[in-house]
Amino acid sequence: MPTSLLKESNVDVLIIGAGPAGVMACNALAKAGINVKIVDQRPEKVAAGQADGVQPRTMEVLQSYGLAERFLKEANQLHMVAFYNPSQEGGIELADRITDVTSATRYPFEATLHQGAIESLFLDSMKSMGIEVSRPFTPASIQVSENEEELKDTSGFPVRVVLRSLAPSEGQADTEIVNAKFVIGADGAHSWVRKAFNITMEGEQSDYIWGVVDFTPDTDFPDIRNRCAIHSDNGSCMIIPREGDKVRLYIQLGDNSAVDATSGRVDKTKIGPHQLLEVARKSLFPYTIKTPETFEWWTIYIIGQRVASQYSIRDRIFIAGDACHTHSPKAGQGMNASMNDTHNLAWKLALVVRGLADMSLLQTYEFERRKYAQDLIAFDRQFAKLFSGKPRTELNQDGVSHEEFLKAFQTFGGFTSGVGIHYAESPITNSTHQAFAKDLIIGKRLPPQALIRAADARPVEIQDYLPSDCRFKILIFAGNTSSTEQQTKIEKLADSMSSILTLYVHSGNISDIFDIISISSATKKDVRYNSLPALFRSHWSKVLLDDIDVQGKQGGDAYKNFGVDSSGVVVIVRPDGYVGTVAPFDSVKDIKAYFSSFMKVQA
Amino acid sequence: MPTSLLKESNVDVLIIGAGPAGVMACNALAKAGINVKIVDQRPEKVAAGQADGVQPRTMEVLQSYGLAERFLKEANQLHMVAFYNPSQEGGIELADRITDVTSATRYPFEATLHQGAIESLFLDSMKSMGIEVSRPFTPASIQVSENEEELKDTSGFPVRVVLRSLAPSEGQADTEIVNAKFVIGADGAHSWVRKAFNITMEGEQSDYIWGVVDFTPDTDFPDIRNRCAIHSDNGSCMIIPREGDKVRLYIQLGDNSAVDATSGRVDKTKIGPHQLLEVARKSLFPYTIKTPETFEWWTIYIIGQRVASQYSIRDRIFIAGDACHTHSPKAGQGMNASMNDTHNLAWKLALVVRGLADMSLLQTYEFERRKYAQDLIAFDRQFAKLFSGKPRTELNQDGVSHEEFLKAFQTFGGFTSGVGIHYAESPITNSTHQAFAKDLIIGKRLPPQALIRAADARPVEIQDYLPSDCRFKILIFAGNTSSTEQQTKIEKLADSMSSILTLYVHSGNISDIFDIISISSATKKDVRYNSLPALFRSHWSKVLLDDIDVQGKQGGDAYKNFGVDSSGVVVIVRPDGYVGTVAPFDSVKDIKAYFSSFMKVQA
Repeated sequence: MPTSLLKESNVDVLIIGAGPAGVMACNALAKAGINVKIVDQRPEKVAAGQADGVQPRTMEVLQSYGLAERFLKEANQLHMVAFYNPSQEGGIELADRITDVTSATRYPFEATLHQGAIESLFLDSMKSMGIEVSRPFTPASIQVSENEEELKDTSGFPVRVVLRSLAPSEGQADTEIVNAKFVIGADGAHSWVRKAFNITMEGEQSDYIWGVVDFTPDTDFPDIRNRCAIHSDNGSCMIIPREGDKVRLYIQLGDNSAVDATSGRVDKTKIGPHQLLEVARKSLFPYTIKTPETFEWWTIYIIGQRVASQYSIRDRIFIAGDACHTHSPKAGQGMNASMNDTHNLAWKLALVVRGLADMSLLQTYEFERRKYAQDLIAFDRQFAKLFSGKPRTELNQDGVSHEEFLKAFQTFGGFTSGVGIHYAESPITNSTHQAFAKDLIIGKRLPPQALIRAADARPVEIQDYLPSDCRFKILIFAGNTSSTEQQTKIEKLADSMSSILTLYVHSGNISDIFDIISISSATKKDVRYNSLPALFRSHWSKVLLDDIDVQGKQGGDAYKNFGVDSSGVVVIVRPDGYVGTVAPFDSVKDIKAYFSSFMKVQA
Repeated sequence: MPTSLLKESNVDVLIIGAGPAGVMACNALAKAGINVKIVDQRPEKVAAGQADGVQPRTMEVLQSYGLAERFLKEANQLHMVAFYNPSQEGGIELADRITDVTSATRYPFEATLHQGAIESLFLDSMKSMGIEVSRPFTPASIQVSENEEELKDTSGFPVRVVLRSLAPSEGQADTEIVNAKFVIGADGAHSWVRKAFNITMEGEQSDYIWGVVDFTPDTDFPDIRNRCAIHSDNGSCMIIPREGDKVRLYIQLGDNSAVDATSGRVDKTKIGPHQLLEVARKSLFPYTIKTPETFEWWTIYIIGQRVASQYSIRDRIFIAGDACHTHSPKAGQGMNASMNDTHNLAWKLALVVRGLADMSLLQTYEFERRKYAQDLIAFDRQFAKLFSGKPRTELNQDGVSHEEFLKAFQTFGGFTSGVGIHYAESPITNSTHQAFAKDLIIGKRLPPQALIRAADARPVEIQDYLPSDCRFKILIFAGNTSSTEQQTKIEKLADSMSSILTLYVHSGNISDIFDIISISSATKKDVRYNSLPALFRSHWSKVLLDDIDVQGKQGGDAYKNFGVDSSGVVVIVRPDGYVGTVAPFDSVKDIKAYFSSFMKVQA
């Protein structure tokens, strides 16, 4: 049989671009059992350089996909930030060393690992599910049906994408047509998908020009393994230690000699890593740094701060990652924002594709993530300005003082760590009963908390009970389950919950979409884990206790830390780990209302 | 070329038996670059059952070989012990729940995983170094030279072992002659090696008969996932929850019907797992337990408590593990004692084979491990007696009271956790200057302690700086390295240490045998990690601080906890993680004396 030179296929989701946003989406969808295809125009994955900073919240997300362990093994951790300022004697001196991450998080540090290694976490996970990136492929055209009925019907494939192979093998099709239910354009700052639909980028370009070099340093600088913000009279410089013995230097360029006057773009032929290091040397004086034999990677950029005017086309095509937002890399936000875009989108697409949720759920992606990107740009403007500004000295009283910089650095902690992200009120973020769990902020991620397992007193982390498996986690804060009176209330609740949750699942399999975890306030000495109704203990490991562990070192105060009412509260955590809603035992009807606002009642 | 039917080879170390003691030895020696061969008579590794309890200290040892992470992923953890006693109403009732492990350790719990899975940790590690178990092979004869000169010369191969294949392939040799420098007989309770040299087992057999069943239970017993000691008027029973949902029951048999009157051995044809479960049911009343579809494993045994009269033949052949000691399995000691035997032996053999240490070093193996086995037996006698005794009740005032049992349980905590092991004074355990680090007990393992890295403020665990790589770890407690005065002392020390350590290594490569870690008492705000002499910071990660981490959660008080004098102390940790000796800065000559007592000065 001759091989056809035109291949055509149907997929649930086509992802264009296998950078951090693309592989996050692909892995999440594949784990959810969605038929997904991912293509990229690069013949190989990124080998070095590019984005490398990972925030605490992103590490929590990696953990929810089972990828944090390997990430932490490979990455470098940043615990402390050192600030260097001009000294009286000329050159710089250590002004302060402070904690890098001050927000409450499971991973209280930033971490660095080159983009290729991070992509590999996902690529290897995808491979274990039989999925690889088709590359090098570039999209040639994209069309979406204009028929409203077709657009509403999730069984059809209303998006048609023509892909062209950049290196077709002998006898293989060089053109491929993919009919998709949904398309994700995760194709970077110069996104083809975005341009195909004339989506504009809103915002502007700054005047700040920076250079970046990656290498293994030989230096007498004592903070070379700490994150450093260096303000000198000879320019600013930032040090980001990386995996192994490598470091990255961000170097402010004082003049515009590397910018092409006509295009306004940087011209990489006018400057190189040696010149960048030479500029850094002036900032670092009196410390010295040797010229390395090789530079692992380098670049120059002008900070641009822009957000896409829209994130989706007819709820069928979505853009994500750098395709939606560009900003300065120094606060280490880029890759994090990108991965969290598709972490937010994937579960929504999965539920819609599986016929469990209404198409309207998809609108919450742009609603939640575009707002976040706008906040990011606003933050970045302030941060970049402070960072690129001249330091305050005797001669320059208008400069940025150390106190100003420090204050800004700490104020933005919740933002830069990623744990402060707060999605606004929407069908999936309903804060009607917030008062019953006042410190489990609806719209924010469920914070880490140690609990102990009722059956075996083993300390566990609540976030480990929230894997990104596209299921809603239903936390039953059951109160004191050793009390007979409370037991009666819990049994009544179990009956109501059973009848509600059954509405949204196929053939009665509640556990397909809902994972129930019980959290009792009984003590480890008294508790009988098997006194709970069967619905609330699908396995012995699903009953947890708000008590300290037998060593007295972990756990305790969960109800208090979460502000949870001890008479009994149900907390719904979205599949992405964000608190969706809360209801006291006697308002269980509002749980039905919550799910009915975006889930489909099954026959 | 025709295949010879008689194969002959030379190896540094031949290990007979690939149970826990054998694979521990093999992996450790292979990691040290020793030419090692391991044989076993079983055609396959153990699939289920057998020993399964792992102590906290053994987990620390696994971690030192890089194997704890996988172990912890696969094993079940026991944090709490529940005690059940006869109730007034007949049957049993919960009397108490207490902490399982009360000793200070990095892994404050016991863990269970079947022996085959534990062996696999080592087998896979060995495989990554190209070593597999030759099986099924049985030894046919063993001979050791009687020439004193030959026995002293570590370049020769004075032990000749004839091995016979139990399943030779077509055309393969069925007999193999191995000439070895050293042989380890890790061939179990019925050790062929032990018998070949007429080594006797000293001790006796008790009257206690116990049955063991492994299965996945369906029960209403609320402590099925805790370790349980159940004393009922219908006999004693112990529950050990295992990996997955499995449990092991240890069941006391009230009569001798399963014992063959003539041989005194148990006869497994007279009883089976169903009968054992039936006995357990009587102890567990009023709780019920269903008969499972299958039993994973079961056995019956009579407790015997014996220790081999000697552990070695002419410092050339050593026996280890069950070949040296037998005792009751209920305190979960067996596999731990076995693995720790060869953990103790391997580094000594490695240093002798490499020509770095004197043959006399090998005598410390029997000295240290036989004493331990005797202590183990003494403990086991008391424990087994208490456990097998009748409970004290109204009718039986002579029985064992809950308080007595509890007290014994807690008294033996240091022993059962394994962290209390204290090797007596010997050339490798020299306590002359104990006073300068009074809580780093010479002869005990270095306890866990969080420190922070000077260069990047990352919290680390000191035990992670003590991998089992056959190197001595030299901890330089350098005092306040920010003080100029102290710096002068440190530089002087570095000069002396350099001239001492160079004596024991080939061609000046100190790091081949010694790994130097500096621990400064400067603060993370002030420290300059690169102010230390080069010898004391072979890499930036080797300088540690006694300070709390930036989150205020880990570290601090190391000097205090260890009782270390802040004016400066050198601590030598043996390659197996036990403190070898201690010296203040001005007694550095005693470090030379320590090493000279068992190491060879190289030309």
